[in-house]
Amino acid sequence: MKLSSLQLARYQYQPKLPGMLRNGISEICVKDGAPTESVADQEKIKALFPNTYGKNEITFQKGANTSPAKKQVVGVILSGGQAPGGHNVICGLYDALKATNKDNVLYGFKGGPSGLLEDSYVIFDDEYIDQYRNTGGFDIIGSGRTKLETEEQFAVVAEVCKKHGITAIVIIGGDDSNTNAAVLAEYFAAHNTGVQVIGCPKTIDGDLKNEDIECSFGFDTATKTYSEIIGNIQRDANSAKKYWHFVKVMGRSASHVALEAALQTQPNICLIGEEVAAKKMSLAQIADYIADSVAARAAKGWNFGVAIIPEGIVEFVPEFSVLIAEINELLAGSKADAFNVLPSWEAKYAFIEAGLTKESMAVFAILPQSIQQQLFLERDPHGNVQVSLIESEKLFSAMVKENLAARKAAGTYNGKFSALHHFLGYEGRCAFPSNFDADYCYSLGYNAFMLIQYGFNGYLSKVSNLSKSAEEWVAGGMPITKMMNIERRHGHDKPVIRKALVELDGAPFKFFEANREQWAVETCYVYPGAIQYFGPSEVCDQPTRTLALEKA
Amino acid sequence: MKLSSLQLARYQYQPKLPGMLRNGISEICVKDGAPTESVADQEKIKALFPNTYGKNEITFQKGANTSPAKKQVVGVILSGGQAPGGHNVICGLYDALKATNKDNVLYGFKGGPSGLLEDSYVIFDDEYIDQYRNTGGFDIIGSGRTKLETEEQFAVVAEVCKKHGITAIVIIGGDDSNTNAAVLAEYFAAHNTGVQVIGCPKTIDGDLKNEDIECSFGFDTATKTYSEIIGNIQRDANSAKKYWHFVKVMGRSASHVALEAALQTQPNICLIGEEVAAKKMSLAQIADYIADSVAARAAKGWNFGVAIIPEGIVEFVPEFSVLIAEINELLAGSKADAFNVLPSWEAKYAFIEAGLTKESMAVFAILPQSIQQQLFLERDPHGNVQVSLIESEKLFSAMVKENLAARKAAGTYNGKFSALHHFLGYEGRCAFPSNFDADYCYSLGYNAFMLIQYGFNGYLSKVSNLSKSAEEWVAGGMPITKMMNIERRHGHDKPVIRKALVELDGAPFKFFEANREQWAVETCYVYPGAIQYFGPSEVCDQPTRTLALEKA
Repeated sequence: MKLSSLQLARYQYQPKLPGMLRNGISEICVKDGAPTESVADQEKIKALFPNTYGKNEITFQKGANTSPAKKQVVGVILSGGQAPGGHNVICGLYDALKATNKDNVLYGFKGGPSGLLEDSYVIFDDEYIDQYRNTGGFDIIGSGRTKLETEEQFAVVAEVCKKHGITAIVIIGGDDSNTNAAVLAEYFAAHNTGVQVIGCPKTIDGDLKNEDIECSFGFDTATKTYSEIIGNIQRDANSAKKYWHFVKVMGRSASHVALEAALQTQPNICLIGEEVAAKKMSLAQIADYIADSVAARAAKGWNFGVAIIPEGIVEFVPEFSVLIAEINELLAGSKADAFNVLPSWEAKYAFIEAGLTKESMAVFAILPQSIQQQLFLERDPHGNVQVSLIESEKLFSAMVKENLAARKAAGTYNGKFSALHHFLGYEGRCAFPSNFDADYCYSLGYNAFMLIQYGFNGYLSKVSNLSKSAEEWVAGGMPITKMMNIERRHGHDKPVIRKALVELDGAPFKFFEANREQWAVETCYVYPGAIQYFGPSEVCDQPTRTLALEKA
Repeated sequence: MKLSSLQLARYQYQPKLPGMLRNGISEICVKDGAPTESVADQEKIKALFPNTYGKNEITFQKGANTSPAKKQVVGVILSGGQAPGGHNVICGLYDALKATNKDNVLYGFKGGPSGLLEDSYVIFDDEYIDQYRNTGGFDIIGSGRTKLETEEQFAVVAEVCKKHGITAIVIIGGDDSNTNAAVLAEYFAAHNTGVQVIGCPKTIDGDLKNEDIECSFGFDTATKTYSEIIGNIQRDANSAKKYWHFVKVMGRSASHVALEAALQTQPNICLIGEEVAAKKMSLAQIADYIADSVAARAAKGWNFGVAIIPEGIVEFVPEFSVLIAEINELLAGSKADAFNVLPSWEAKYAFIEAGLTKESMAVFAILPQSIQQQLFLERDPHGNVQVSLIESEKLFSAMVKENLAARKAAGTYNGKFSALHHFLGYEGRCAFPSNFDADYCYSLGYNAFMLIQYGFNGYLSKVSNLSKSAEEWVAGGMPITKMMNIERRHGHDKPVIRKALVELDGAPFKFFEANREQWAVETCYVYPGAIQYFGPSEVCDQPTRTLALEKA
């Protein structure tokens, strides 16, 4: 067996383009929009991007193609974590490029931005591309996390472009990669290289979202895959009726993924990091909030439930952030040596007790021992606590267990609490893209080539009106600088694309907030099941709940 | 949102029956087969089942229904762990029962066998049943693990049956539950209660398999769900190219689930417990075997891979079984007290070192500390090590890491090894049943009612020829005693259904064995993707690879 039957069947799928791009390459023209400004810090951003700032938004429409006849040699890279649909961005780009001129060439630089620096590439042809249509993963050329951000790197990239006669680079990445795409575009413009840069909005985390990006690609498929699994776990919980499942989901700092999964599955509990921060909740308060649900359900005889925990949650708990900062300080540099030679955990614990403030020690003391040890024993090369490795699903279940023990002693709870833990992340980043992501990504790539063909530089490939059918989608481009503001990073002012956190007054959170009390106490589970590609449209073509609510 | 769009769509699915059951209730008659014998220990089994032993196998065929007109009142229970399709067994049973006589009644006893003992039930009607058609889970009436095995319990069950006028009980369960179904059937016959018992073969573990059971229901859907996830993880590994994923999969002792997942996804490594036992492999040998693949791939520049670890693996490692036995002995009863009061892990370690044999201490010493502590700190109420809780995926990755460090020191390995861990179990037990399981289960239930209607007792609902299209499936019944032999359990001889382990000379293992060397070193991943319900037949209706290979 070389390929699965689904993969073979998906090769036959023809992704849907926005209506305005469906009339063939010769019938796509540009409609100019208004000049743009950055969302904040306009003067500073303008000063940093003198050649690419303030350009017009554009959309494509049906009409005679007026782009100059010019052989295009395009390079494409995948940057950062995998997201379903990345292959289709490249397929759409390739198809538009070849449809425009069969002598056009598409280079795929391997292993992410480093492929561009190291001039490691493949040249795509039909046979190569056809193996990756409508498939998940980034294995078509691989990805990587090298950041393209220094002048030295840009000079190397310019050399590589010159060597191959490359006329444009397409960068498929998240907020950082698109920020860097804008900086590279400015560099190319300032140095009259003639090379254009186009960005495509990728991330399953959903935090690359703003006025111009309705959603990043991959979010749809990844959240549907996690929701499939969470729904299955819920059905198991509701059948066995004896476990509380604590399910941590990926998503970096923001809680978009957790929220979307909650909207799809209606679990008993879903924590939202942004709310925890806004309410300045402590770990104990969070545990108490969960324990309320456990106790209320136990009173009905239901000693089971499901809680979704966003990966980034602990960073949002103020007292925990302080604790982490103190630990980093306590073990900074050579101070760690004195700690490391202590012979037993007891001795280490005494060292910690002497070193932390009273407030942070109080937080530390309530943590389960396994988490305490993790904070001190697993540090990164700089000696810092690795927050992303903290098993927060186990942290909260352990704290809930203690909270319930106190309730039991007080006579206010008389149930059983048995917890199981899950972490969902790698399970969804490389799934076969849903029809939505397959269509959206193909359109992003196709559209990116049209932006190249019409000479745009420092633009984001923008496809919007996504809550409607693909026929009604709007394709065009937006200067990346429009999405930027200035933020303080590592002690320097930097122009960056603002990361989108969950908005507590946005429709998705409001819907969740209005229903969660009922979900916490009753059993309102929804079981989405596996992503379907061939069935009825209402099963196969639903956008995310987040998008549907935002656009309702 | 109350129900997912997939759930609504699946309500409309009409499960396929075997051809011989498709002509309507009035056209189903019995074709007698040969008398049966148990697979072993015939005299002993016969003596234990004087009233139900040796009956004929039967099949159904098209022909005038000659069953006596009799009002049937049937009770059904779900026993043990969830398996996709359980709801459809009940739906098929209900439909045949009502089609035969609309005054027939179906009781669902709640929470597993204990519902029968406690007379806790629902009476099904169309509205109730229709909510559960083609859905996953056992939430229709819940399940439980109480064993129905004593005379006292049987007497209670007989009372409950008498109270409701119940004429037959259908037990949906695994090997133990079907064994107990046979014992209950014998009790009912011996006591002239007139109540019949029919068993249905359920378990995702795949270990209820023999001459008469081609596969237990749920195995198809669960393994497809795990394979979806493993395929996604493989695609992620092959895209990021920096992690080795160790994926533990459910399946109790036997390695059927792991093997099927491996056949579907072609990972670099899949351990098979039965092979480990046959070859008397040590933990170190297993780690070395995995490390060989890691090193060979690293030599090609591939510092990534996927290894599937069956849940039951450690029980099959002879030296590990001895170690567990010694630990259980070392901490038996009050001996644990002296251990528990020791103040530090160091002191406890010394206690352990003094108490184990030299051989077992050598095994213990090579375990990672977290596993060492788990063995001693997490014991069941009887003081025994909880083998099923051992995180064997972490055990092997830690041992592989050490093995690779030694290779690096010896200059034979120069790669990077970074491991991630997954445990797949609850993710698949309650998925929406695949078309195969939806059809198979509905047929099992429908067929179970026909066995009841024709007066059979102590029979298994048997549907076979499953590797062919449903039209060609063969429906009938087989005395459960045929599958039995005598085994020594807790110091007593017991008649039980023989659990099926992976056969090392069977076609599925042979296929795996013939290919795994290539899979270990090359990247031959297959990405099955999510279960499809509506697409082309080759995508939606493939049986498991195990079944296809066994019947090839």
